[in-house]
Amino acid sequence: MDRTGLLIILSSPSGAGKSTLARRLMDWDPSLRFSVSATTRPPRPGEVDGQHYYFTTAGAFHQMVEQGQMLEHAEVFGNLYGSPSAPVEAAMRDGRDTLFDVDWQGGQQIRASALGGHVVSIFVLPPSLPELERRLRARGQDSEAVIASRMAKSRAEISHWAEYDYVLINDDLDRTEQNLRAILTAERLRRDRQGGLGRFVKNLMEEHA
Amino acid sequence: MDRTGLLIILSSPSGAGKSTLARRLMDWDPSLRFSVSATTRPPRPGEVDGQHYYFTTAGAFHQMVEQGQMLEHAEVFGNLYGSPSAPVEAAMRDGRDTLFDVDWQGGQQIRASALGGHVVSIFVLPPSLPELERRLRARGQDSEAVIASRMAKSRAEISHWAEYDYVLINDDLDRTEQNLRAILTAERLRRDRQGGLGRFVKNLMEEHA
Repeated sequence: MDRTGLLIILSSPSGAGKSTLARRLMDWDPSLRFSVSATTRPPRPGEVDGQHYYFTTAGAFHQMVEQGQMLEHAEVFGNLYGSPSAPVEAAMRDGRDTLFDVDWQGGQQIRASALGGHVVSIFVLPPSLPELERRLRARGQDSEAVIASRMAKSRAEISHWAEYDYVLINDDLDRTEQNLRAILTAERLRRDRQGGLGRFVKNLMEEHA
Repeated sequence: MDRTGLLIILSSPSGAGKSTLARRLMDWDPSLRFSVSATTRPPRPGEVDGQHYYFTTAGAFHQMVEQGQMLEHAEVFGNLYGSPSAPVEAAMRDGRDTLFDVDWQGGQQIRASALGGHVVSIFVLPPSLPELERRLRARGQDSEAVIASRMAKSRAEISHWAEYDYVLINDDLDRTEQNLRAILTAERLRRDRQGGLGRFVKNLMEEHA
């Protein structure tokens, strides 16, 4: 059936398992498309244009924003980041869902965009803040100052949980993955999300029984 | 968490697999409560009061309707059938979902009732009408006239598919069961269906991190 793809927004404080969950969802459903961000930040070694980011200039970025070609965008440490709408619209036409790994501000902007009616938003909560801090430390990547700043950002992120359609408490990664699969499966079965149902029923009724 | 139970309405033409699916859902989740109907029809051999039906008199039935104690009711071949609200309200308070096996008219009445905001409604379509007729014949219970009347009723039932939240095409019983499980799992994870989330987040934020 010719369904229209959904925009799946996954938000959570950093360290709550979001990236792992996003990767697992992509493994589970290869038709799912991950929204690659555009950025004005220069590529780091190993980063591939169009795969990790669309690397672009500030001029081109601003032009896309002005022409309404960014679903959301933000400035972080002097660099611009945004979600280009064209690949999302192409995926929607193909009946493919797009997964967005964005924070609450990105979520708000996408919900308020012209494609907002196709959004399914999911917030992943950590089981506890000490557990979140423990996970951040376990990465061994960050200084104490960075960890403190991440924890402050996490609290700000968590404060927006009530803006999301679904809320998951990630106390077990496997179970949370199952729950995410259930949400995607169910959302695709909603009457108003299924294309071609009316035609299916019309054909059903016109068959000679 | 102290969630409020949902009212899960499952409708389909007879022969589309609804009873089997309802039984499988109850096996999967023993906390699910099946809504037992009240009826003025006399018990058949082997039928247990309170298990197959609540057997009652027309007087008592009408009194329940007048006192708003029936979520839905209908007259079929001179007998009254209805869904008493009291056991549903008790289950809701216990955080247990109730499963209703009702037709489109029952579904409409429950949706329009005071508990309508807690309804999740699912319509199960047969893959085809000849397949539906084949299944009815395979039961070997019914005369040609009864089968013709059931098929007419099926068409009337199917015509109401667009009033439901979810629509499943039952071309594979196992897959349809998985889809039903996904819908129940996802609906329970909706932010506005989870009780106590606000308190959970409040506690989370007040922990010493």
